[in-house]
Amino acid sequence: MGRVLGLVLLLSGVVIATAQGGEAGGLHSSDSRRDPHGLAAGMQPWWPSRYGADDQRGSLNEITPAVVLGAIGLVKRGETVDLGRVLDEDTPKFPGRYWHQTVDLSAHVTNLRRPDAQGKGWGKNQINWITEIQAGTFQVGTQLDSIGHIQIGDRFYNGWTVRDVVESWGLNHFGMETVPPIVTRGVLVDVAAFKGKARLDKGYVIGVEDLDGALARQGVALRQGDAVLIHTGWGSLWGKDDATFLSGEPGPGMALIDRLYERRVAILGADTWSIGPVPGEDPERPFLVPQTMYVKMGLFGLENLATEDLAAKRIYEFLFVLTHGKTRGSTAAVVAPAAVY
Amino acid sequence: MGRVLGLVLLLSGVVIATAQGGEAGGLHSSDSRRDPHGLAAGMQPWWPSRYGADDQRGSLNEITPAVVLGAIGLVKRGETVDLGRVLDEDTPKFPGRYWHQTVDLSAHVTNLRRPDAQGKGWGKNQINWITEIQAGTFQVGTQLDSIGHIQIGDRFYNGWTVRDVVESWGLNHFGMETVPPIVTRGVLVDVAAFKGKARLDKGYVIGVEDLDGALARQGVALRQGDAVLIHTGWGSLWGKDDATFLSGEPGPGMALIDRLYERRVAILGADTWSIGPVPGEDPERPFLVPQTMYVKMGLFGLENLATEDLAAKRIYEFLFVLTHGKTRGSTAAVVAPAAVY
Amino acid sequence: MGRVLGLVLLLSGVVIATAQGGEAGGLHSSDSRRDPHGLAAGMQPWWPSRYGADDQRGSLNEITPAVVLGAIGLVKRGETVDLGRVLDEDTPKFPGRYWHQTVDLSAHVTNLRRPDAQGKGWGKNQINWITEIQAGTFQVGTQLDSIGHIQIGDRFYNGWTVRDVVESWGLNHFGMETVPPIVTRGVLVDVAAFKGKARLDKGYVIGVEDLDGALARQGVALRQGDAVLIHTGWGSLWGKDDATFLSGEPGPGMALIDRLYERRVAILGADTWSIGPVPGEDPERPFLVPQTMYVKMGLFGLENLATEDLAAKRIYEFLFVLTHGKTRGSTAAVVAPAAVY
Amino acid sequence: MGRVLGLVLLLSGVVIATAQGGEAGGLHSSDSRRDPHGLAAGMQPWWPSRYGADDQRGSLNEITPAVVLGAIGLVKRGETVDLGRVLDEDTPKFPGRYWHQTVDLSAHVTNLRRPDAQGKGWGKNQINWITEIQAGTFQVGTQLDSIGHIQIGDRFYNGWTVRDVVESWGLNHFGMETVPPIVTRGVLVDVAAFKGKARLDKGYVIGVEDLDGALARQGVALRQGDAVLIHTGWGSLWGKDDATFLSGEPGPGMALIDRLYERRVAILGADTWSIGPVPGEDPERPFLVPQTMYVKMGLFGLENLATEDLAAKRIYEFLFVLTHGKTRGSTAAVVAPAAVY
Repeated sequence: MGRVLGLVLLLSGVVIATAQGGEAGGLHSSDSRRDPHGLAAGMQPWWPSRYGADDQRGSLNEITPAVVLGAIGLVKRGETVDLGRVLDEDTPKFPGRYWHQTVDLSAHVTNLRRPDAQGKGWGKNQINWITEIQAGTFQVGTQLDSIGHIQIGDRFYNGWTVRDVVESWGLNHFGMETVPPIVTRGVLVDVAAFKGKARLDKGYVIGVEDLDGALARQGVALRQGDAVLIHTGWGSLWGKDDATFLSGEPGPGMALIDRLYERRVAILGADTWSIGPVPGEDPERPFLVPQTMYVKMGLFGLENLATEDLAAKRIYEFLFVLTHGKTRGSTAAVVAPAAVY
Repeated sequence: MGRVLGLVLLLSGVVIATAQGGEAGGLHSSDSRRDPHGLAAGMQPWWPSRYGADDQRGSLNEITPAVVLGAIGLVKRGETVDLGRVLDEDTPKFPGRYWHQTVDLSAHVTNLRRPDAQGKGWGKNQINWITEIQAGTFQVGTQLDSIGHIQIGDRFYNGWTVRDVVESWGLNHFGMETVPPIVTRGVLVDVAAFKGKARLDKGYVIGVEDLDGALARQGVALRQGDAVLIHTGWGSLWGKDDATFLSGEPGPGMALIDRLYERRVAILGADTWSIGPVPGEDPERPFLVPQTMYVKMGLFGLENLATEDLAAKRIYEFLFVLTHGKTRGSTAAVVAPAAVY
Repeated sequence: MGRVLGLVLLLSGVVIATAQGGEAGGLHSSDSRRDPHGLAAGMQPWWPSRYGADDQRGSLNEITPAVVLGAIGLVKRGETVDLGRVLDEDTPKFPGRYWHQTVDLSAHVTNLRRPDAQGKGWGKNQINWITEIQAGTFQVGTQLDSIGHIQIGDRFYNGWTVRDVVESWGLNHFGMETVPPIVTRGVLVDVAAFKGKARLDKGYVIGVEDLDGALARQGVALRQGDAVLIHTGWGSLWGKDDATFLSGEPGPGMALIDRLYERRVAILGADTWSIGPVPGEDPERPFLVPQTMYVKMGLFGLENLATEDLAAKRIYEFLFVLTHGKTRGSTAAVVAPAAVY
Repeated sequence: MGRVLGLVLLLSGVVIATAQGGEAGGLHSSDSRRDPHGLAAGMQPWWPSRYGADDQRGSLNEITPAVVLGAIGLVKRGETVDLGRVLDEDTPKFPGRYWHQTVDLSAHVTNLRRPDAQGKGWGKNQINWITEIQAGTFQVGTQLDSIGHIQIGDRFYNGWTVRDVVESWGLNHFGMETVPPIVTRGVLVDVAAFKGKARLDKGYVIGVEDLDGALARQGVALRQGDAVLIHTGWGSLWGKDDATFLSGEPGPGMALIDRLYERRVAILGADTWSIGPVPGEDPERPFLVPQTMYVKMGLFGLENLATEDLAAKRIYEFLFVLTHGKTRGSTAAVVAPAAVY
C-alpha cells in the first residue's frame, strides 16, 4: 500500500490500512499450519517440509558453499550461453496471462519547458531520457516460479493457507524477494537426443530411465544442489508454431521428480511452458508435477528455457547463474539464466 | 503490437501496423547516424563508439572469456552476497516513476466451477494457483539501465536518433533483450571508508584520487572488464529517510568516469539512485555523468545497489553475476546482482 | 481472456480456457442462490430481491418512463451543473486504490518512419496523434458503484456467491455493462444547510428527521425513482485537506436508508468517499450502510459527488443524467453526472 | 505526478518535479500559438478557432441553454436507447490499442485477518468487497475523443504545440476534464437506409447529398448544437467479423464535414471505429476527416456508436445525453451515450 494511500483510517477503532511487507498495520498475521483443515479425503499433511516448518527457500537450501565451489570449477573456457527467451506481448502465453509495454518519451517534450532547456534537451548537455510503462504478470516468458505460485486447495508449501499468505499486493511469504541469487552447478539433460528425436511428443512422460539413459549417454552424474535442465526440443515451437507449443508438452513424470527430490537437486527446468507432461499421467490430476514440486517438495522450477544452444554445443555441465529482480510478493520473475563453461 | 491487434490495415495503400521487433511492417527503418543534425553548438559527433558503429553492447564488450576466467578464480569460499534491494510501491522512486502490484487469486474461485473440481480446487489434486498484475516502469529499485535510456538531444549511443529507435512498445535498439548475462570480476570501492565517513555528503564529487586512495587502502587494482561498485553509504538512507535519499546524492565526477573509461571497466554501479553527484559538478549540465557514460562511452550503470554487506565484510574482489529478464525494448531491468566470493 | 490467449488447451480432457462474457468455455456456470450456506448466525437470506430473483438492475428499475417524463419537465432554463470531480493520481483515494496515467506520444516519432511521412507527420496532412496508458481501479474519484461491489460474507445481491460470479477478468453478473444509462429526477438534500453548518461533522449520522427537515426547508418532496444527492459539505475537504477527508465522514444512517428504500428512490449519492457515517453507528458493523444498500436492497450509490455548486445555487430539483463506459465485469465506473435545470 | 513522488528535487537549482494539473512545479508553461513554425509548405495557420484563441470546448460551445430546452422538448415517451457497446479485451481495437482487466478479490481473504473478522468477512456484518485492476488506453470501444487527440504535425486545435501541451501524465490542455457533460438534441442520420443497404461499403464517401437525402427521407432538419449520429450499418460487423470491421469503413467525406461545420453542429458520431471513409478520399492524406474536425474545426467526434436500435425503431430525433469520467489529461473517454425519446 502506497504511503500516499496509507493514511491510517480509524474506523470504529479498526485500522483498515495495512503496511506492505506485513510488518505492521490493521491486519493480524495468521498461521494455519497447526490446523490441517481443508485437505481432500485421504490427503495427509505434507508439512513441515524437510527444510523445516519455517522454511521459504525449499530446494535452494541444497546449494551449499561446497556446491558453489564445485560448480565454479566447471568453468574452463570463460564462455557464456544465455538460457532466456525474449519476452514481448506476442510471445506465447498461458491463457489469461498478459504482458504489454508502452514507451514513454514524454521527457523529450517536457524537458523543453525547463527554464534552462537548450536546443532539444535540458541544460547545456541537452539531456533527455526514455522510460517505459509495463503492465502484466511475471508468469510469462522464461520464468522462475516462486514455490508459492501453486497450492493444494488453499494450502501452500509448509502448510500455510491463502488466509495466512495473501495480501492485496502479493504474497507475504514466498514472494520473489525471498528467493536468493542462484549460483550452482547446471546439468543439461538432453532427453530428446537420447530418444533420437528433435522434439519429444506432446504428453510424453519422461521417466527415470530416460534421465538415467540420457545422463549415461552424456557421461554426467547428478549431484546435490544441481540445476537440472531438461531439453525436450519442445521449445523449438516457440515463436514458430505457438498454437502447438501451448497445446500441450512433454515433461518429467511423477517418478522422475521423486527421483530428483531424492537426489536433492536444487532446480528443475525445461524448454516447455510448464513442467511435466500435458496431458498428464493422471487425467484426474491436472498439473500434478509442478504442484507436487512446489507445494510438497519445495522444489523450484524454471519454464521456457532456451536450452537449444547448450544441446547443440553438447555442453552438459556448467556453472549455472540466475539472478532476478526482487519484487515484493510476486509469484514469479521473468528471467534469463546463464550457463558459464 | 499484439497479433490480435496486428490486423494489417491497408489505408490508402499504407500499412499502419508494425511488427514488434521491427522485422516487418509498415514503418521503414531509419538510420540517422551519417547525418549529425541537431547537435548543440560546439558539440562534435561522439560516434562511432570504440566498439564499432553497429555496437549495442558497449562496455560489456570488455568482458572477454579471459576476464570471466579471471573472475571465476576469485571464488574461494562459495558464499554469495545479494546486492539487490526489495522493490515495492513504497520504495523510494525518482519523481514520475511508479510501481504497483495486485495479487490475482481468482483461480481459487474459478477453479471451483470446473467440471471436475474437488473440494477447494481443480481435479482430485485440488490444484489452485496465484499470480499478480504489475504496472509500472523498470526504471525503479535496484536497476540495470540500458545504454539507450539517456540521450543527448535526440541522439543515442552510436549516433542513432529517437526517430530511428523509438517504437510504441519500446526501443528497437538497446532494449534489455540486447544486454547479455553478465559474469565478470566485481570490485567494491569503499569510498566512504576511505574518507572516514559512514556516508558521503550530498553532492560530494568522488574523484580519481578517491578511487586510487580507496583501492590502495583495499589493496586491489582495477582490471579491464571489471564491475566497479562504489560504496558511498548513501544507500543507508533507503527506506529510512527516503526524502533525504532522493534529495541528492554523492557520486563519481567526470574525471573519475574518464579514468574508468580509460581502464576499460565494464560496469559502474553505486548505492545511489542515479550515478554521479547531485547536485552535479556543473550546474548547467544536469546528470552529465550518466549521460556521458551511456551516450558517449557506452558504459553500463547500476543503481540502488545494496553494497553495505560487502563493505561490512570487507569483500573487495569477487565474482560478479547479473542476469535479468529480457523484456523487449525496455530501457532498464529491475535486478539483484550477486557477489560470489 | 483475450482471443490471442484463448487457445483452447485440452488438458486431460479438460478445457481450461474460458470465454470472456461467459458465453462458452471450460468453466461451468454456477448458481448458489437456492443453497443459502455461509450466512452468519441469525442471518436470514435476503433474496430474492423485490425486483425478482434474476434482477441485476436493482433500484434502477424504479426509473419508469413516467419517472423520466416527470424529470424532463423540471428543465426550465436549459442549464447544466457538472457533479463530477476531476480524477488524477493525486486525488484522495481509499487505502489500496490507485490510478496512474502516462501519455503515449510515440506516434509523433514513429509516423516519421512511414514511407509517405511529410515534415513532422504522416501524409501530406502530416497527421499525428497522442493516446494514454492508464492503470488502476475504477473504485476511485466520483464513482458509480456496481451493486456487485460489496458482499455479505461471500454473498451478493440476490444471493449469488463469489463462486458463481467471479471471473479472472471481473464479475459475470453486476458488471458495469449491466447498468443502463440513467435519466431521472434528481433531488439535492442540503443537510448541511438544514443543520446550519458549512460541513457536517465526521461520523455524524444523518437521520430521517434530517431528511424531512431539509426537504421541508427546500419545499421539495421525494418521489419514486429519484436520484437523492446529499450535500454534507464534507466534499469541501477534497484536494484541500485530503487526510481529514479520508479520515472519516458524515453520512446517512440505517434508518434513513430504510426510509429511502421504502420511498423507492433509484440512487443515493453524496459528497463523501463512501456512503454512510464513518465511524459508523455500530462499531461492530463497518460500512453497514453501503453493504445494506447494495447487497440487500439493490440500491445504487454514488460517491464523491461535487454537490457544492447545486447547494450554492439552491437548485434542489433537476433532471439528473448519468451515462458511463460499459466496461465488462467492472465493479464501478468513474463518472461525472450532470444536473440539468 | 504523485505527491509521494513529488519530492521536490533541487538539482543544481533546477526543480525537476512538476505538479499534476500544472498549478506549479519546475516546468515553465509554453505558448507557441503566436509562432506558427513547422507548418507544411502551403499550410496556413488555422487558429484562432471560431470559438476564440483560448477555447478548449470547440463545437460544444454550440450547445446553448436554448438548444438544451429544444432538445428537452423532444422527449415524449420517457424511453431510453443505450448507444454504447460493451468493452472488454476481445472487442475490436485499432492496432496498438489495448485494454485488460483483472478482478481483485483479495479483500475476501485479507478481511479474515482483521481482529473482528466474523465468519467469512469483516465485522458482525461480514463485509467484503471486490474491485478490479485495469490497464489500457481510453482510445478503445465506444469513445468520445478529446479534440486534443489528433495533431497536424506538432500542432493542436487553436495552434498549441506538443511542447506546450504534453505532460508525462497526459495533456495539460484538452484533457477529458475540460469536456463538459453533453445534453443536446440528437439526430440519427440513417444513410444506409437512404442508400437501400444494410451496410455501406468500405471506403464509401458519404456526401452532402446523402445527408440531405437521408434527412429528407426522415423528415428531419439539422439545427445548431445537434449531435449528428450517422448510421452506416458498418457496426453490424462488431463482434461478428472484427477483421473486416477493422479493415476499413465508410464515412462522411470532407464536403460533408464542411457542411456540418457550417451548420454549427456540436458532435459528429458514427457506428465506425474512426470517422470518415477508410481508405479516404485522398490517398495522400490519411485520416483527414477526424484531423480536420478536431484540429481545425474543434468539432467533437464519437466512435463505435451502437446506432442499430435507433435505426430499427426509426427514432430520428431525441434528447442526447452523454456524461463521462473526468480523468485528467486523457485523450478520450470510454462512454455509452443515451438517446431519450
